[in-house]
Amino acid sequence: MIVATSIDTVRGLLAQVRCSRQTVGYVPTMGAFHEGHLSLMRRSVAENDFTVVSNFVNSLQFSPDEDFERYPRNLAEDNQLCEQVGVDLVFAPAAEEMFPSPAVISMQLSGLGEVLEGKYRPGHLEGVATIVAKLFAIIGDCRAYFGEKDWQQLCVVRSLAQDLSLPAKVVGCDIVREPDGLALSSRNRYLTPEQRAGATVLNRALRHGVDLIVKNTEATVKSVSEAMSELIVAEAVVETLDYAVVVNSQTLLPPSKLEGDLRLLAAAKVGTARLIDNLGVKL
Amino acid sequence: MIVATSIDTVRGLLAQVRCSRQTVGYVPTMGAFHEGHLSLMRRSVAENDFTVVSNFVNSLQFSPDEDFERYPRNLAEDNQLCEQVGVDLVFAPAAEEMFPSPAVISMQLSGLGEVLEGKYRPGHLEGVATIVAKLFAIIGDCRAYFGEKDWQQLCVVRSLAQDLSLPAKVVGCDIVREPDGLALSSRNRYLTPEQRAGATVLNRALRHGVDLIVKNTEATVKSVSEAMSELIVAEAVVETLDYAVVVNSQTLLPPSKLEGDLRLLAAAKVGTARLIDNLGVKL
Repeated sequence: MIVATSIDTVRGLLAQVRCSRQTVGYVPTMGAFHEGHLSLMRRSVAENDFTVVSNFVNSLQFSPDEDFERYPRNLAEDNQLCEQVGVDLVFAPAAEEMFPSPAVISMQLSGLGEVLEGKYRPGHLEGVATIVAKLFAIIGDCRAYFGEKDWQQLCVVRSLAQDLSLPAKVVGCDIVREPDGLALSSRNRYLTPEQRAGATVLNRALRHGVDLIVKNTEATVKSVSEAMSELIVAEAVVETLDYAVVVNSQTLLPPSKLEGDLRLLAAAKVGTARLIDNLGVKL
Repeated sequence: MIVATSIDTVRGLLAQVRCSRQTVGYVPTMGAFHEGHLSLMRRSVAENDFTVVSNFVNSLQFSPDEDFERYPRNLAEDNQLCEQVGVDLVFAPAAEEMFPSPAVISMQLSGLGEVLEGKYRPGHLEGVATIVAKLFAIIGDCRAYFGEKDWQQLCVVRSLAQDLSLPAKVVGCDIVREPDGLALSSRNRYLTPEQRAGATVLNRALRHGVDLIVKNTEATVKSVSEAMSELIVAEAVVETLDYAVVVNSQTLLPPSKLEGDLRLLAAAKVGTARLIDNLGVKL
């Protein structure tokens, strides 16, 4: 496995790979790997001849009051895990390589970028869009694997690839969960044992929401959202609930009726960790 | 010469070209070729193994009150000229190929994107940045040739390539002029013979500005700008003067003193044509 820190090195290596007619799989990450990341890498290794992982904690997607400084970083351990699952190339640039000078260009999002996380984390999705655009431009033609835990991010990244004609085919992958339902997240390590136990409420609420939609003919967009919200705020370890909603899975807008391809999404703060989760249901 | 209308075709052809170790030169255009465009193509042909020209009138860079509808289009003649100068591939997509669905992502510009054209043509440079980002993502690794007539555009495109790590090396090329100094422009064909004669005032004013800077030790940023503006507004065919200024050639901000790498830029409306021009001077 090769670990590269420069854009030019990565471009050069991938040009060789492509010219030898190998397909490229790509997993963009911020490191601090858990089984969720590893499942993306394993899928990429299985579906492509050559797999690249980028490992870069992107300051653009954190607001000043968020956890950029304390976000877990452990490159040596991360690289070892990459090697174990069969990754071919890790791109782990320094901030100066990615941001050599103050930027003139930034991304603006409309529509599905303005709701939910767009509302509760202003600038977050724009920061994600900028770094993913850069990374896609560096990696080039590839299949790019993203977890569905960040459902809205996945929707924004699909739009980004389409809108800017970036040469990546975006592949969404199932959420990996603990046996009790908690979605894996690098931020779960911020939780105390008590918070960790209570954090499953997000998934429980979403499953309850899906149950209502599927089984209760009286359920409405509003009643499902309210039922999920009640469950979450009743949990002692939850500091604040940002949202617990049912939306159209593509537009992320509330549907007029409970029909079609729906996504239930929730975001809440548990201790100092802001956690998100989502589930899909098709009617 | 190949004329392609689909993104996938262009990507496929260029992948082959690169794998045969040929270098790619790229000239992005909106068609309606004059000697300025042809000089970019000739330079690309001379400096690269394979030259691509894109020909696409980008609606994003026109505001509703501008000349998108009547902007000159003549693809058959354009292709003939490309072939004559040795272009290998023309990419002439339909609007639906470039904009298949409403965009979620748009570009925002700060700093050098906010002044001059950024002020007088709101949204114009953002529209240029979006289409150039897309085109660079489609064409991939290349030398990309831009005329210096759109000096600010060239500065924005350089920033774009840097900020989004797009794989294009941006090359600025000298302005091509008529014998009487008028910068070539597809919009010159909107001019009546009388307007055409008077339109040289932009270049005359800029040359007068450079003369003052070089020869007059009393000259200031303000006095040079005023002298150029006076000349331009005194010309009968000039409808409105947008600006006639001296700025730092990189930041496009007024320098505190007349020193360093300076750029003199002017924009004015002559009849229904909005014309721009610029000159550089180093002290």
